[in-house]
Amino acid sequence: MKDARLAVVGCGAVGRSVLELAGEYGHRVVAVADSSSAAVDADGLDAEAVLERKSARGIVGDADPDAVFDAPYDVLVEVSPTTLGDAEPGFSHVKRALEADRHVVLANKGPVAERYDDLRELEAASAGSVRFEATVGGAIPALSTIDDLDPGHVTAVRGILNGTANFVLSRMAAEGLDYEHVLAEAQDLGVAEADPSFDVEGTDAALKCVILANVLHGGGYTLADADVDGIEDIPGSALDLASEDGRTVRLVGEVSGGEVRVGPRLVPQNGTLAVSGTMNIVQIETEHAGPLAISGHGAGGPETASAVLADVGRLPRL
Amino acid sequence: MKDARLAVVGCGAVGRSVLELAGEYGHRVVAVADSSSAAVDADGLDAEAVLERKSARGIVGDADPDAVFDAPYDVLVEVSPTTLGDAEPGFSHVKRALEADRHVVLANKGPVAERYDDLRELEAASAGSVRFEATVGGAIPALSTIDDLDPGHVTAVRGILNGTANFVLSRMAAEGLDYEHVLAEAQDLGVAEADPSFDVEGTDAALKCVILANVLHGGGYTLADADVDGIEDIPGSALDLASEDGRTVRLVGEVSGGEVRVGPRLVPQNGTLAVSGTMNIVQIETEHAGPLAISGHGAGGPETASAVLADVGRLPRL
Repeated sequence: MKDARLAVVGCGAVGRSVLELAGEYGHRVVAVADSSSAAVDADGLDAEAVLERKSARGIVGDADPDAVFDAPYDVLVEVSPTTLGDAEPGFSHVKRALEADRHVVLANKGPVAERYDDLRELEAASAGSVRFEATVGGAIPALSTIDDLDPGHVTAVRGILNGTANFVLSRMAAEGLDYEHVLAEAQDLGVAEADPSFDVEGTDAALKCVILANVLHGGGYTLADADVDGIEDIPGSALDLASEDGRTVRLVGEVSGGEVRVGPRLVPQNGTLAVSGTMNIVQIETEHAGPLAISGHGAGGPETASAVLADVGRLPRL
Repeated sequence: MKDARLAVVGCGAVGRSVLELAGEYGHRVVAVADSSSAAVDADGLDAEAVLERKSARGIVGDADPDAVFDAPYDVLVEVSPTTLGDAEPGFSHVKRALEADRHVVLANKGPVAERYDDLRELEAASAGSVRFEATVGGAIPALSTIDDLDPGHVTAVRGILNGTANFVLSRMAAEGLDYEHVLAEAQDLGVAEADPSFDVEGTDAALKCVILANVLHGGGYTLADADVDGIEDIPGSALDLASEDGRTVRLVGEVSGGEVRVGPRLVPQNGTLAVSGTMNIVQIETEHAGPLAISGHGAGGPETASAVLADVGRLPRL
């Protein structure tokens, strides 16, 4: 869809980047909401002004957050924080847009991982479509590549899907430092959150794998179906031992044989899966074309926003 | 397009695989031609029978090759050998199909590298569309990924685009053997042709880069615009020297700053571009999402055929 009018829900790193970049992709943001406020302009918001206000006053505008849904938009962009279980309030935002026959593009993983079947049901009853490239692998076009190859011809998907965990493990291996030390370094660099559990416990990677499983199998998976182990208990000595054998340890997520597994795994030091730093990689096993591996930035404001805006471009005219 | 009727011109490794796999992708081959014969069946050919005949008698059928164009087809699949300059007879096959308002999917690089502007002109005047994913990187969805990201947001593309040259260089590096020795080994394995010049001189990689340049810039490039150096003069000592510095040598093709260059280049031994064996990799520099790298099988019957059949699936209904 060209020249789409976007209603953006969420004004964190990704939401801010969507505001900044929408114009370059030929789209217009007509409304934006954060958790406590909204700004609406049917002719298109002044992104710079909104972002300055957010920066200075902590709010995007003077309207109620709900006002976003009354704006004349084509696509609801759901980029508010991922929540688990009932995936609220994100799920209700998506429901509202689809019931109004509008399109939805998500970077919010909650509705797609935890309520996929409900989401597809709402979509089927709507004139609008749902897209969520940004939920898996950030800038890596994992889902559209799988879609393009036809999920039926994809036999397995595995990958390094969390940049924080990968940064920690590759630094531990490269510098011979222990987990606590590298985690603290990552937090200083802004690569890990003050509460890093979502990343280091493997939950973030697991949500992405659950989404992949839903896409490959047409639904039926939630986070509860994933077998998840994180990286908090890996001693530096394990990495040294692995290294003597030409291997290293990475947090790998895999969807194959109907199962979803995330956990630390030994991989060849110079192999495909041994990406460094915060990079992500998605490896797609295909029926006739062998393995395809796509690597790139799995997170970041502009990186994730570019995936969101690419999805807007893929939507059909309403 | 679903359930497409395919007219396949060319019955080498790729053509044979298209015949074998078309059914799995939901399509039907109604005609196939090699250089001296054709077989036609509006209800769909018996692929096994045709392939047996080709194997036993060297021909696909009893009809004249031209008969392929009279079959009731939706998509012409041009998988005959790549030719340079006027790109004939492939170009005329494509012209005929487009003038009959049919779609065209190519694995044949000639028309796309050498006569891109003519091709797009014929396409503009036709109800049919032209697709050519299989011409660059075999199974790697390079062109559809670029298309999806929007060529306007892609600042450069580089890659390892020839499996033969890459195999030779990675074997020279891994085993410390010289060029002649490894080339002979590659020929024994069927990885290099009896006349390997197309691959080792860099022509094949250059054609693929010219195609990428045409896609990124909307035309204007032919093989003559590429600056091409092959791998025939690289001594084993160059690889040893590189290795002491943590690097190796690969035949890299690049499209950037309006230029097209193919030549041997020093790359980090464990870096993204140091793929091994016959694997290919395409690295796409994007404006906001950083670099994306996609690796996979760049050649092979089933691999290339899967790219052809994926293209058929992307075509609009006629």
